[in-house]
Amino acid sequence: MFENTQKTEIANLGEFGLIDHLTKNIKLNLDTTIKGAGDDAAVLDFKDKKTLISTDLLLENIHFDLAFTPLKHLGYKAIQVNLSDIYAMNGMASHVTVSLGFSSKFPLEAIEELYAGMLLACDKYQIDLIGGDTTSSRQGLVISVTSIGYADESDIVYRNGAQEGDLICVSGDLGGAYVGLQLLEREKQVFLANPKIQPDLEGKDYIIERQLKPEARLDIVDLLKKMEIKPTSMIDISDGLASEVLHITKQSKKGCKLYEEKFPIDPQTVEMARDFGLDPTVCALNGGEDYELLFTIKQADYDRLKHDVDISVIGYITEENAGNYLITRSGNAHELKAQGWNAFKSTES
Amino acid sequence: MFENTQKTEIANLGEFGLIDHLTKNIKLNLDTTIKGAGDDAAVLDFKDKKTLISTDLLLENIHFDLAFTPLKHLGYKAIQVNLSDIYAMNGMASHVTVSLGFSSKFPLEAIEELYAGMLLACDKYQIDLIGGDTTSSRQGLVISVTSIGYADESDIVYRNGAQEGDLICVSGDLGGAYVGLQLLEREKQVFLANPKIQPDLEGKDYIIERQLKPEARLDIVDLLKKMEIKPTSMIDISDGLASEVLHITKQSKKGCKLYEEKFPIDPQTVEMARDFGLDPTVCALNGGEDYELLFTIKQADYDRLKHDVDISVIGYITEENAGNYLITRSGNAHELKAQGWNAFKSTES
Repeated sequence: MFENTQKTEIANLGEFGLIDHLTKNIKLNLDTTIKGAGDDAAVLDFKDKKTLISTDLLLENIHFDLAFTPLKHLGYKAIQVNLSDIYAMNGMASHVTVSLGFSSKFPLEAIEELYAGMLLACDKYQIDLIGGDTTSSRQGLVISVTSIGYADESDIVYRNGAQEGDLICVSGDLGGAYVGLQLLEREKQVFLANPKIQPDLEGKDYIIERQLKPEARLDIVDLLKKMEIKPTSMIDISDGLASEVLHITKQSKKGCKLYEEKFPIDPQTVEMARDFGLDPTVCALNGGEDYELLFTIKQADYDRLKHDVDISVIGYITEENAGNYLITRSGNAHELKAQGWNAFKSTES
Repeated sequence: MFENTQKTEIANLGEFGLIDHLTKNIKLNLDTTIKGAGDDAAVLDFKDKKTLISTDLLLENIHFDLAFTPLKHLGYKAIQVNLSDIYAMNGMASHVTVSLGFSSKFPLEAIEELYAGMLLACDKYQIDLIGGDTTSSRQGLVISVTSIGYADESDIVYRNGAQEGDLICVSGDLGGAYVGLQLLEREKQVFLANPKIQPDLEGKDYIIERQLKPEARLDIVDLLKKMEIKPTSMIDISDGLASEVLHITKQSKKGCKLYEEKFPIDPQTVEMARDFGLDPTVCALNGGEDYELLFTIKQADYDRLKHDVDISVIGYITEENAGNYLITRSGNAHELKAQGWNAFKSTES
C-alpha cells in the first residue's frame, strides 16, 4: 500500500546512489557507535558489556501483504519485531542493520516510505541504523533486519532459567494482532470482490494497530529494572503464547500450568474473534505477532508487580513430569501444544 | 544444483523441528561465544575489543543461479563474502547469523547441503554460527548473512584513510570470478539448447572456483600483521576494482592512478576473456566477485611486502583534484568510472 504519487525510477540512481540517498538522513546518536553505514562493516564499542545479536527475515506474501500494509508501518514493524528479541534477553537494543531486496519497478518514493517507518522506530527507541545491503529482487519485497544490543552479563535473562513454583507473567494483552490480521484479510477479499466497497474498519483501531504497528516492550524491561525484578526466564511472543511458553519449559526442563481465566485479552479482540467464530483463548494461545514479553519470576517478587495493570500473572511453573497444561474456565486441563505459525505448512499446502 | 537423491518434506518437520535439525550439528568453539542459537538473541563477549558488524543479502536469480551452483558451494560462498567484509576492516571475523527463506518444496536434504557448505566455511575460518531465521519463501531462495567480528580500535582500517603518495595494493588476482561466471552461463545455455551435450569445463577449474568457491583473504590480514604493516585504507573487491578504488578515493578525498600493466590477472582468466571477446583489463576493473583485498600502504612499507608474490602494487594515491585515472599499457590515461554491478539495471531492464 503506497500513497505517495511521485515515482522516481531507482535504476537511474544505481545501487550506490540509492544507498547514498537513503542513508544521508540517518543520524547516529549513540556513544557506542564508532562507525555506522559507509564502510565494509560498522564498528561498535560496548566496553565491558556483552553483545547481543538477533536477526529476522521478512518476506512479502509470507510475513506481510502489501495490499493492506502501508510501507511506513511495515518499516516500523520490521524494526520493532527485531528489537523485541533483544528486550526479551533483558538487554538494551542499540543498533540495527537493514537489508532490502525489491523489484527495480518499485519507485524510489516507496522505498523512502519504508525507510521512513524504520527510521521512525529507530528514533523512538534510540537505535542507530548502522548499515545493510540493498539489491533488486525478482521475488517481491525482502526485508532482513539484524538487531544488536548489549547487557551486563548478570542482567541477561535466557529461556532456560525457569524454576518450579515461578510465576508465569505476560505483558499487555494477547490475540489482538491475529484478529487484526483476520479483519484486514476479510476486508481485502471484500474489496477484491467489489472495489467500490470501502473497507469497514471503524472502531477497530486497536486490533489493526496491534497487527500493523506493534511496539516492542522496552517499557517492560525498564519497569522490571525499576522494580528490581530480574525474571528467571523470558521470551517474546512472536508465534503465540503456547509455542513460547513451551520454549521456556522445554529449555528449563520444567512443566507449566496456565489459567485461561487469567489471560489478558482486550474486549475488541474478544468481540472480533467471536465475529469470526474464533475462540479468543485460542487466538491468544496460537495467534502470534503480539510481541509482548512472556517471563517467569520468583514468587517472592510477586508483591512488587501485582499492582501493575500491564502485567498479568497467567500461571506457574511445575516440575517437568507434570507436563504443560491449560486449565480452562470450566476447570478442565488441556495439554498445551505449539500450534504456532508453521510457515512451511501454512503457505503452500 | 542438487545431487542428493533422498527427499524429506520440510513441512513434516515444522519450523522448530527444522531449526533443531539444522542446528544440532553446530559446534561452538570460541571463547567469545557465551550463547549461540536457541534463544531470542545470541550473547557475545568481545571484552575490550570493538565489535564489527556487516551484512549481505543474496537472492536467487540475482546473485546466484541454482542451475549451475551446487548448494554446498553456495553455502560456502555466502559465508565467505560476508567474512570478507570483516577482514576488509583489518578485523578478525568470529561469528555469523544465517537467515534462510526457501520454498516448502525444497527437500530437507537440499537445505542440509546448503548448511553443510556454510558450516564448512565456518569450520575452516574458525567462525561460530550463532543464530538466524528460517522461513518459507514463495520467491526462490533467500540467504541473509550477518557477520560479526572484533578488532582493537587501533588496528581498524577504514576506507577513508588513504594519503597522497600511498601505494595501492591488491591481493591475489582479478577478473577470474567474472569470466568463470560467463563460462558457466554459456555452458548452461548450451545445455538448455541440447541437454545431451555435457558442459565443457575441462582445464577451467581455476576460474570456475573463483566464481563458485571464493576464499576471503584472512591470510592477507594475518600476513600484513606479521609484516607489521597497517594499511592506510582497505576495502574488499565485491563489485570490481574500479568501483572499490573509487570508494577509497571518494571517502579519502583523494585521487588515484592505476597502471594496467600492473594488474594481476591469471593466464586462465586472460584466455577465457579473449574467448568471449572481452578485454581482460575490463574484466578486472568491472567484473566483481573476486573478494580480494584492495588496500593502500605508506611508501615506507613497500620494502616489507615487495617480495610477496600474492600482493601486487597497482598504482598510487594522488591529490583529489588530479582525478582517478587508469594508465593503459600504451600510456593513455582513461578516467576511472564505477561500472560495477548495478543490480537494479542488470536484472530487469
